[in-house]
Amino acid sequence: MRLPNYLEGVLRSECAVDGDDANLVLERMVQGSRFKSQLKAVMIDGVALGGFNLVDIDALHEAIGVPVITVTRDPPDLGKMESALRKHFSDWERRCEVLRRKELWEVGTGHKPILVSLAGLGHAEAEEIIKKSMVRGAVPEPLRVAHMIASGLAKGESKGKA
Amino acid sequence: MRLPNYLEGVLRSECAVDGDDANLVLERMVQGSRFKSQLKAVMIDGVALGGFNLVDIDALHEAIGVPVITVTRDPPDLGKMESALRKHFSDWERRCEVLRRKELWEVGTGHKPILVSLAGLGHAEAEEIIKKSMVRGAVPEPLRVAHMIASGLAKGESKGKA
Repeated sequence: MRLPNYLEGVLRSECAVDGDDANLVLERMVQGSRFKSQLKAVMIDGVALGGFNLVDIDALHEAIGVPVITVTRDPPDLGKMESALRKHFSDWERRCEVLRRKELWEVGTGHKPILVSLAGLGHAEAEEIIKKSMVRGAVPEPLRVAHMIASGLAKGESKGKA
Repeated sequence: MRLPNYLEGVLRSECAVDGDDANLVLERMVQGSRFKSQLKAVMIDGVALGGFNLVDIDALHEAIGVPVITVTRDPPDLGKMESALRKHFSDWERRCEVLRRKELWEVGTGHKPILVSLAGLGHAEAEEIIKKSMVRGAVPEPLRVAHMIASGLAKGESKGKA
Protein backbone atom coordinates (compact mmCIF):
# COMPACT_ATOMS: atom_id res chain seq x y z
CA MET A 1 0.00 0.00 0.00
CA ARG A 2 1.17 3.47 -0.81
CA LEU A 3 0.28 5.60 2.20
CA PRO A 4 -2.16 6.68 3.22
CA ASN A 5 -4.46 4.36 1.30
CA TYR A 6 -3.61 3.54 -2.31
CA LEU A 7 -3.61 -0.23 -2.81
CA GLU A 8 -0.69 -1.21 -5.06
CA GLY A 9 -0.80 -4.98 -4.77
CA VAL A 10 -2.22 -8.01 -2.95
CA LEU A 11 -0.15 -11.03 -1.93
CA ARG A 12 -1.49 -14.29 -0.54
CA SER A 13 0.25 -17.12 1.21
CA GLU A 14 -0.36 -19.77 3.86
CA CYS A 15 1.28 -20.86 7.08
CA ALA A 16 0.55 -23.71 9.46
CA VAL A 17 -1.74 -23.14 12.47
CA ASP A 18 0.53 -23.34 15.55
CA GLY A 19 3.46 -24.12 13.21
CA ASP A 20 6.85 -22.47 13.08
CA ASP A 21 6.98 -21.32 9.45
CA ALA A 22 5.67 -17.75 9.85
CA ASN A 23 9.08 -16.17 9.27
CA LEU A 24 9.87 -18.36 6.29
CA VAL A 25 6.49 -17.66 4.65
CA LEU A 26 6.77 -13.89 5.11
CA GLU A 27 10.38 -13.88 3.93
CA ARG A 28 9.44 -15.76 0.75
CA MET A 29 6.46 -13.46 0.09
CA VAL A 30 8.63 -10.35 0.33
CA GLN A 31 11.69 -11.69 -1.48
CA GLY A 32 9.61 -13.09 -4.33
CA SER A 33 7.53 -9.97 -4.82
CA ARG A 34 7.96 -7.50 -7.65
CA PHE A 35 7.10 -4.81 -5.08
CA LYS A 36 10.18 -5.62 -2.98
CA SER A 37 12.30 -2.67 -4.14
CA GLN A 38 9.50 -0.21 -3.28
CA LEU A 39 8.85 -1.51 0.25
CA LYS A 40 9.62 0.95 3.02
CA ALA A 41 8.15 -1.15 5.83
CA VAL A 42 6.27 -4.38 6.48
CA MET A 43 3.32 -4.06 8.86
CA ILE A 44 1.92 -7.08 10.71
CA ASP A 45 -1.28 -7.37 12.75
CA GLY A 46 0.26 -8.64 16.01
CA VAL A 47 3.08 -11.14 16.26
CA ALA A 48 1.14 -14.39 15.82
CA LEU A 49 -0.13 -15.72 12.47
CA GLY A 50 -2.39 -18.75 12.77
CA GLY A 51 -2.58 -19.59 16.46
CA PHE A 52 0.91 -19.55 17.99
CA ASN A 53 2.86 -19.43 14.74
CA LEU A 54 5.01 -16.49 15.90
CA VAL A 55 6.94 -14.00 13.81
CA ASP A 56 10.44 -13.18 15.05
CA ILE A 57 10.49 -9.65 13.67
CA ASP A 58 14.22 -9.12 14.30
CA ALA A 59 15.03 -12.19 12.20
CA LEU A 60 12.50 -11.13 9.56
CA HIS A 61 14.02 -7.67 9.33
CA GLU A 62 17.48 -9.19 8.99
CA ALA A 63 16.32 -11.61 6.28
CA ILE A 64 14.48 -9.09 4.09
CA GLY A 65 16.38 -5.88 4.84
CA VAL A 66 13.14 -3.95 5.31
CA PRO A 67 11.88 -2.51 8.64
CA VAL A 68 9.06 -4.45 10.34
CA ILE A 69 6.26 -3.01 12.50
CA THR A 70 3.70 -5.04 14.47
CA VAL A 71 0.49 -3.34 15.54
CA THR A 72 -1.97 -4.59 18.13
CA ARG A 73 -4.95 -2.93 19.71
CA ASP A 74 -5.09 -4.69 23.07
CA PRO A 75 -2.23 -5.47 25.46
CA PRO A 76 -1.47 -9.22 25.23
CA ASP A 77 -1.79 -11.35 28.39
CA LEU A 78 1.77 -12.68 28.29
CA GLY A 79 1.36 -14.81 31.41
CA LYS A 80 -1.64 -16.61 29.95
CA MET A 81 0.09 -17.07 26.60
CA GLU A 82 3.19 -18.44 28.28
CA SER A 83 1.27 -21.06 30.24
CA ALA A 84 -0.55 -22.15 27.07
CA LEU A 85 2.81 -22.44 25.29
CA ARG A 86 4.33 -24.48 28.16
CA LYS A 87 1.41 -26.85 28.08
CA HIS A 88 1.21 -27.50 24.35
CA PHE A 89 4.62 -26.88 22.73
CA SER A 90 7.88 -28.72 23.23
CA ASP A 91 9.73 -25.61 21.96
CA TRP A 92 7.85 -23.32 24.35
CA GLU A 93 11.02 -21.61 25.55
CA ARG A 94 11.88 -20.37 22.07
CA ARG A 95 8.32 -19.17 21.50
CA CYS A 96 8.19 -17.39 24.87
CA GLU A 97 11.47 -15.67 24.13
CA VAL A 98 10.08 -14.34 20.82
CA LEU A 99 6.94 -13.14 22.60
CA ARG A 100 8.81 -11.35 25.37
CA ARG A 101 11.86 -10.01 23.53
CA LYS A 102 10.33 -6.93 21.92
CA GLU A 103 9.12 -3.92 23.87
CA LEU A 104 5.52 -2.92 23.15
CA TRP A 105 5.29 0.80 22.69
CA GLU A 106 2.17 2.95 22.78
CA VAL A 107 1.26 5.25 19.90
CA GLY A 108 -1.51 7.81 20.39
CA THR A 109 -4.15 7.84 17.68
CA GLY A 110 -6.80 10.37 18.70
CA HIS A 111 -8.88 7.30 19.63
CA LYS A 112 -7.67 4.44 21.81
CA PRO A 113 -3.86 4.18 21.60
CA ILE A 114 -2.36 1.23 19.71
CA LEU A 115 0.62 -0.89 20.72
CA VAL A 116 3.53 -1.45 18.38
CA SER A 117 6.84 -3.27 18.32
CA LEU A 118 9.64 -2.43 15.91
CA ALA A 119 12.60 -3.98 14.12
CA GLY A 120 14.91 -1.95 11.92
CA LEU A 121 13.50 1.50 12.53
CA GLY A 122 13.21 4.00 15.38
CA HIS A 123 10.19 5.28 17.28
CA ALA A 124 9.99 8.61 15.49
CA GLU A 125 10.08 7.07 12.02
CA ALA A 126 7.58 4.36 13.00
CA GLU A 127 5.19 6.91 14.47
CA GLU A 128 5.34 8.94 11.27
CA ILE A 129 4.52 5.88 9.15
CA ILE A 130 1.72 4.75 11.45
CA LYS A 131 0.06 8.14 11.69
CA LYS A 132 0.28 8.66 7.94
CA SER A 133 -1.43 5.29 7.44
CA MET A 134 -4.56 6.10 9.45
CA VAL A 135 -7.53 7.39 7.46
CA ARG A 136 -10.48 6.83 9.80
CA GLY A 137 -10.30 5.37 13.29
CA ALA A 138 -7.16 3.93 14.84
CA VAL A 139 -6.27 1.03 12.53
CA PRO A 140 -3.54 1.62 9.91
CA GLU A 141 -5.05 1.19 6.43
CA PRO A 142 -2.71 -1.63 5.31
CA LEU A 143 -3.86 -3.76 8.25
CA ARG A 144 -7.51 -2.76 7.99
CA VAL A 145 -7.60 -3.62 4.28
CA ALA A 146 -5.59 -6.86 4.66
CA HIS A 147 -7.97 -8.00 7.41
CA MET A 148 -10.99 -7.16 5.27
CA ILE A 149 -9.66 -9.13 2.31
CA ALA A 150 -8.73 -12.19 4.40
CA SER A 151 -12.03 -12.09 6.26
CA GLY A 152 -14.06 -11.65 3.06
CA LEU A 153 -12.34 -14.65 1.52
CA ALA A 154 -12.74 -16.89 4.51
CA LYS A 155 -16.34 -15.98 5.28
CA GLY A 156 -17.79 -14.74 1.98
CA GLU A 157 -18.23 -11.27 3.50
CA SER A 158 -15.71 -9.29 5.56
CA LYS A 159 -16.50 -8.91 9.26
CA GLY A 160 -14.84 -7.46 12.38
CA LYS A 161 -11.78 -5.28 12.66
CA ALA A 162 -8.05 -5.80 12.13
CA MET B 1 -16.30 0.98 -1.61
CA ARG B 2 -17.09 4.46 -0.50
CA LEU B 3 -15.96 6.76 -3.32
CA PRO B 4 -13.40 7.65 -4.27
CA ASN B 5 -11.41 4.91 -2.57
CA TYR B 6 -12.34 3.88 0.96
CA LEU B 7 -12.78 0.11 1.13
CA GLU B 8 -15.79 -0.73 3.30
CA GLY B 9 -16.08 -4.47 2.70
CA VAL B 10 -15.01 -7.44 0.62
CA LEU B 11 -17.39 -10.13 -0.64
CA ARG B 12 -16.43 -13.36 -2.31
CA SER B 13 -18.47 -15.83 -4.31
CA GLU B 14 -18.13 -18.29 -7.18
CA CYS B 15 -19.86 -18.92 -10.46
CA ALA B 16 -19.45 -21.62 -13.09
CA VAL B 17 -17.09 -21.04 -16.05
CA ASP B 18 -19.35 -20.73 -19.13
CA GLY B 19 -22.34 -21.38 -16.84
CA ASP B 20 -25.55 -19.37 -16.57
CA ASP B 21 -25.57 -18.54 -12.84
CA ALA B 22 -23.86 -15.12 -12.94
CA ASN B 23 -27.08 -13.23 -12.22
CA LEU B 24 -28.12 -15.56 -9.43
CA VAL B 25 -24.70 -15.38 -7.75
CA LEU B 26 -24.55 -11.58 -7.88
CA GLU B 27 -28.16 -11.27 -6.70
CA ARG B 28 -27.44 -13.51 -3.69
CA MET B 29 -24.24 -11.61 -2.83
CA VAL B 30 -26.03 -8.28 -2.79
CA GLN B 31 -29.24 -9.43 -1.11
CA GLY B 32 -27.34 -11.29 1.61
CA SER B 33 -24.92 -8.45 2.35
CA ARG B 34 -25.08 -6.22 5.41
CA PHE B 35 -23.93 -3.41 3.06
CA LYS B 36 -27.07 -3.71 0.91
CA SER B 37 -28.85 -0.66 2.33
CA GLN B 38 -25.81 1.54 1.67
CA LEU B 39 -25.28 0.49 -1.95
CA LYS B 40 -25.77 3.24 -4.51
CA ALA B 41 -24.51 1.23 -7.49
CA VAL B 42 -23.00 -2.11 -8.42
CA MET B 43 -20.02 -1.91 -10.79
CA ILE B 44 -18.95 -4.90 -12.89
CA ASP B 45 -15.81 -5.36 -14.97
CA GLY B 46 -17.45 -6.18 -18.30
CA VAL B 47 -20.54 -8.31 -18.76
CA ALA B 48 -18.97 -11.79 -18.62
CA LEU B 49 -17.88 -13.52 -15.39
CA GLY B 50 -15.94 -16.72 -15.95
CA GLY B 51 -15.84 -17.28 -19.71
CA PHE B 52 -19.29 -16.74 -21.22
CA ASN B 53 -21.25 -16.66 -17.96
CA LEU B 54 -23.03 -13.43 -18.85
CA VAL B 55 -24.70 -10.92 -16.56
CA ASP B 56 -28.07 -9.62 -17.70
CA ILE B 57 -27.75 -6.23 -16.01
CA ASP B 58 -31.38 -5.25 -16.59
CA ALA B 59 -32.54 -8.39 -14.77
CA LEU B 60 -29.93 -7.84 -12.04
CA HIS B 61 -31.06 -4.26 -11.50
CA GLU B 62 -34.66 -5.43 -11.30
CA ALA B 63 -33.80 -8.17 -8.80
CA ILE B 64 -31.71 -6.07 -6.41
CA GLY B 65 -33.23 -2.61 -6.86
CA VAL B 66 -29.78 -1.02 -7.20
CA PRO B 67 -28.35 0.55 -10.39
CA VAL B 68 -25.77 -1.53 -12.26
CA ILE B 69 -22.83 -0.23 -14.31
CA THR B 70 -20.49 -2.34 -16.44
CA VAL B 71 -17.11 -0.93 -17.39
CA THR B 72 -14.80 -2.21 -20.09
CA ARG B 73 -11.64 -0.75 -21.55
CA ASP B 74 -11.69 -2.24 -25.05
CA PRO B 75 -14.62 -2.50 -27.47
CA PRO B 76 -15.77 -6.15 -27.55
CA ASP B 77 -15.66 -8.00 -30.88
CA LEU B 78 -19.34 -8.93 -30.89
CA GLY B 79 -19.13 -10.81 -34.20
CA LYS B 80 -16.38 -13.06 -32.90
CA MET B 81 -18.15 -13.63 -29.59
CA GLU B 82 -21.38 -14.49 -31.37
CA SER B 83 -19.74 -17.12 -33.55
CA ALA B 84 -18.06 -18.68 -30.49
CA LEU B 85 -21.44 -18.76 -28.74
CA ARG B 86 -23.18 -20.35 -31.77
CA LYS B 87 -20.52 -23.02 -31.91
CA HIS B 88 -20.42 -24.02 -28.23
CA PHE B 89 -23.74 -23.16 -26.56
CA SER B 90 -27.19 -24.59 -27.20
CA ASP B 91 -28.69 -21.42 -25.66
CA TRP B 92 -26.57 -19.15 -27.86
CA GLU B 93 -29.53 -17.00 -28.90
CA ARG B 94 -30.27 -15.99 -25.31
CA ARG B 95 -26.59 -15.22 -24.65
CA CYS B 96 -26.24 -13.17 -27.84
CA GLU B 97 -29.34 -11.20 -26.96
CA VAL B 98 -27.82 -10.31 -23.55
CA LEU B 99 -24.54 -9.30 -25.23
CA ARG B 100 -26.20 -7.09 -27.83
CA ARG B 101 -29.10 -5.61 -25.86
CA LYS B 102 -27.24 -2.86 -24.01
CA GLU B 103 -25.72 0.16 -25.68
CA LEU B 104 -22.03 0.69 -24.89
CA TRP B 105 -21.38 4.30 -24.11
CA GLU B 106 -18.05 6.10 -24.04
CA VAL B 107 -16.91 8.03 -20.97
CA GLY B 108 -13.88 10.33 -21.25
CA THR B 109 -11.25 9.82 -18.56
CA GLY B 110 -8.31 12.11 -19.40
CA HIS B 111 -6.60 8.92 -20.58
CA LYS B 112 -8.12 6.41 -23.01
CA PRO B 113 -11.92 6.56 -22.79
CA ILE B 114 -13.75 3.63 -21.17
CA LEU B 115 -16.94 1.96 -22.34
CA VAL B 116 -19.90 1.51 -20.03
CA SER B 117 -23.40 0.08 -20.10
CA LEU B 118 -26.09 1.00 -17.62
CA ALA B 119 -29.21 -0.36 -15.96
CA GLY B 120 -31.30 1.72 -13.59
CA LEU B 121 -29.52 5.03 -13.92
CA GLY B 122 -28.94 7.72 -16.55
CA HIS B 123 -25.79 8.82 -18.34
CA ALA B 124 -25.21 11.94 -16.26
CA GLU B 125 -25.50 10.12 -12.93
CA ALA B 126 -23.31 7.25 -14.14
CA GLU B 127 -20.65 9.63 -15.41
CA GLU B 128 -20.58 11.40 -12.04
CA ILE B 129 -20.11 8.08 -10.19
CA ILE B 130 -17.44 6.85 -12.60
CA LYS B 131 -15.42 10.05 -12.55
CA LYS B 132 -15.58 10.27 -8.78
CA SER B 133 -14.26 6.70 -8.57
CA MET B 134 -11.05 7.32 -10.53
CA VAL B 135 -7.97 8.09 -8.44
CA ARG B 136 -5.11 7.42 -10.87
CA GLY B 137 -5.42 6.30 -14.45
CA ALA B 138 -8.68 5.35 -16.11
CA VAL B 139 -9.91 2.39 -14.05
CA PRO B 140 -12.57 3.05 -11.36
CA GLU B 141 -11.14 2.16 -7.94
CA PRO B 142 -13.78 -0.47 -7.05
CA LEU B 143 -12.85 -2.47 -10.17
CA ARG B 144 -9.11 -1.90 -9.85
CA VAL B 145 -9.14 -3.08 -6.24
CA ALA B 146 -11.48 -6.04 -6.88
CA HIS B 147 -9.24 -7.19 -9.74
CA MET B 148 -6.15 -6.88 -7.53
CA ILE B 149 -7.72 -8.94 -4.75
CA ALA B 150 -8.95 -11.68 -7.10
CA SER B 151 -5.65 -11.79 -8.96
CA GLY B 152 -3.60 -11.86 -5.74
CA LEU B 153 -5.66 -14.77 -4.45
CA ALA B 154 -5.50 -16.78 -7.63
CA LYS B 155 -1.81 -16.21 -8.34
CA GLY B 156 -0.24 -15.42 -4.95
CA GLU B 157 0.58 -11.91 -6.15
CA SER B 158 -1.69 -9.51 -8.03
CA LYS B 159 -0.86 -8.87 -11.70
CA GLY B 160 -2.32 -7.00 -14.67
CA LYS B 161 -5.13 -4.49 -14.77
CA ALA B 162 -8.89 -4.65 -14.30
